[in-house]
Amino acid sequence: MFSLEEVSGGARAGVLRTRAGEVATPFFMPVATFGTGKGVGPQDYRAAGARAVMCNAFLLSLRPGIEVVEGLGGVGRFMGFGGAVFTDSGGFQAGSDELFVKASRRGVHLRSPFDGSVTVMTPQRLVEVQERLGSDAAMVIDDMAPADASREEYLRSLRNTHRWARECKDAHGDKKQLLFCIVQGGYDASLRRESAEYLAGLDFDGYGIGGCAIGEPKPDMYRAVRSSTPFLPDDKPRYLMGVGSPPDVVQAVSLGVDCFDSVFPTRNARHNMVFTRKGPYQLEKARFARDSGPLEEGCDCWVCRSHSRAYLRHLSSVDEAEGKRLRQAHNLRFMARLMEDMRAAIKEDSFPSFKESFLEGWFGGRIPKLYKS
Amino acid sequence: MFSLEEVSGGARAGVLRTRAGEVATPFFMPVATFGTGKGVGPQDYRAAGARAVMCNAFLLSLRPGIEVVEGLGGVGRFMGFGGAVFTDSGGFQAGSDELFVKASRRGVHLRSPFDGSVTVMTPQRLVEVQERLGSDAAMVIDDMAPADASREEYLRSLRNTHRWARECKDAHGDKKQLLFCIVQGGYDASLRRESAEYLAGLDFDGYGIGGCAIGEPKPDMYRAVRSSTPFLPDDKPRYLMGVGSPPDVVQAVSLGVDCFDSVFPTRNARHNMVFTRKGPYQLEKARFARDSGPLEEGCDCWVCRSHSRAYLRHLSSVDEAEGKRLRQAHNLRFMARLMEDMRAAIKEDSFPSFKESFLEGWFGGRIPKLYKS
Repeated sequence: MFSLEEVSGGARAGVLRTRAGEVATPFFMPVATFGTGKGVGPQDYRAAGARAVMCNAFLLSLRPGIEVVEGLGGVGRFMGFGGAVFTDSGGFQAGSDELFVKASRRGVHLRSPFDGSVTVMTPQRLVEVQERLGSDAAMVIDDMAPADASREEYLRSLRNTHRWARECKDAHGDKKQLLFCIVQGGYDASLRRESAEYLAGLDFDGYGIGGCAIGEPKPDMYRAVRSSTPFLPDDKPRYLMGVGSPPDVVQAVSLGVDCFDSVFPTRNARHNMVFTRKGPYQLEKARFARDSGPLEEGCDCWVCRSHSRAYLRHLSSVDEAEGKRLRQAHNLRFMARLMEDMRAAIKEDSFPSFKESFLEGWFGGRIPKLYKS
Repeated sequence: MFSLEEVSGGARAGVLRTRAGEVATPFFMPVATFGTGKGVGPQDYRAAGARAVMCNAFLLSLRPGIEVVEGLGGVGRFMGFGGAVFTDSGGFQAGSDELFVKASRRGVHLRSPFDGSVTVMTPQRLVEVQERLGSDAAMVIDDMAPADASREEYLRSLRNTHRWARECKDAHGDKKQLLFCIVQGGYDASLRRESAEYLAGLDFDGYGIGGCAIGEPKPDMYRAVRSSTPFLPDDKPRYLMGVGSPPDVVQAVSLGVDCFDSVFPTRNARHNMVFTRKGPYQLEKARFARDSGPLEEGCDCWVCRSHSRAYLRHLSSVDEAEGKRLRQAHNLRFMARLMEDMRAAIKEDSFPSFKESFLEGWFGGRIPKLYKS
């Protein structure tokens, strides 16, 4: 269900086969929490060339409810998306402070944003929810220690994470749905290695790397990634959860990561940040008021082909929802195009020079040391 | 610039030629106040099959400003729309209570929603603004007496309206931009006739019928329309401003109206009202929770082809902006399709039976008397 096709400078190109079709790797997933993004939706994902999205199983189980999604043929058909749909517990998603209550031995306690009631998401329950939601790839439930946790807390979290992963695998019956586990272990190289090796032994369809992009310093994040990927099976996809800043995506691909999800491109687009190969810029700046060029020179997205910066800056200036949509559509296409270009570079074994050239463009020539190896 | 092709039961089919291309009549214009709708935009207008939209010249002159729009090649190119763009002063648009200060002999006093400053929109100024905005059809400025005004006030308003229309015509230099006047006269048949006859004598490119859809009883509105259209030139388009409820559009077409604009289809869509040939319904109702059918059976819009009622009801239930967009896209396609079907019926001289069948469907068999003749 995963074929590794080429490796170039540590970066991998492959194909992930899901029941919703093939997804070329590396790939980036827009976050469609409730089956849509905020002011951007399935049609926009398709138009951007995104082949997979990430939904929140817990929230979908509350609204519209499992029975509704099940009755409509599963979350992919329910959304009318067409690509592959990943789901996870969603307890740790960006903005989920409202959802997460605590982790206990049994599972993760999550609060409904609708009525405040608390559900204990056990491994068995999460597997059942995701099987019935019919997502194409399900994530196990994991216990993520906070960034400032003690070593003891990390160890306890890791024990939960590993036991729950095993229990999820045991409970998982739908063999057409992929099941990904999640490596934890904080920013400690030995714990990460321990977690990766333990989970590698359980033979999952894919390997999430969790606990990153939660506010930790970047060097910590890369230590976590570098201490995980070498110990994961080569023939399974690796998914760095919650990471979506373009240079981090490129760097993580060079470390052997295949798959990402993040609200970074869309949330920033809502706040007027436009991605380009020459780095991001803020659209509200006065210098764009009369700019007849596209959001990004050379971009093939429909927004860049149809609308000028001046029009899009105007939509920001009068705070029209339509502007939020157009900016998000561009940033999502930027991400998909970046993934396509990385894949092409890997296939022709020129990834290291692609990476250098991308980072030079993004950072305006001054590549931070962090990204240099 | 307008060719009348067929008349059937009072309804007219024709072609309006603008510098942005031909627009088949009858037609309905989505309202794109600032160059976009609220959560629905130019791409959606095109996808719906709308060939013309209505923008607010006053607001566009404030933001992004005339110079910006002019520099980008005019409002149509600025928006990236592709169809024809109408503009009017916008002083009387729905929700414009904030904008309208008063009318004086000189013109209409309008307040900026951005800084509160007041502009006197004189005939000369409005013509200049619209010429520089480069819209394909400009409206004159008119003086609309409130629905409860005295006859004396109506007479004074009418004198302003007529004098301003003449002054707009005198000031108007761009012969490639169409110029429409606006018939006023409240709900008094003799004043409406007087206004229509007076303006008919000035030979405008098109004739707006103003002062309708501002909260007056429907019989008053139809008296105003019926007292106007017979006295307008046959070879010019008639535009009933602000009317967009489907049965009223059909009825007005039967009275010889060619063109409409209104926020009715989009505003109601934002509030979960979905248009169908069997009448409108509220999408939030529980009975749609598991409904796998489209918003409207038989609709050819992309929303109906891609998404179920259950998904769209879910988007309403979780209050996602994407749902607002999809509902609006459907209602706009409903309007465009209605106009296309009316045109086809006129062309084959079967408009009266189309009208009856449409109204029976919309009202569930009980057609109100108002629509029967």
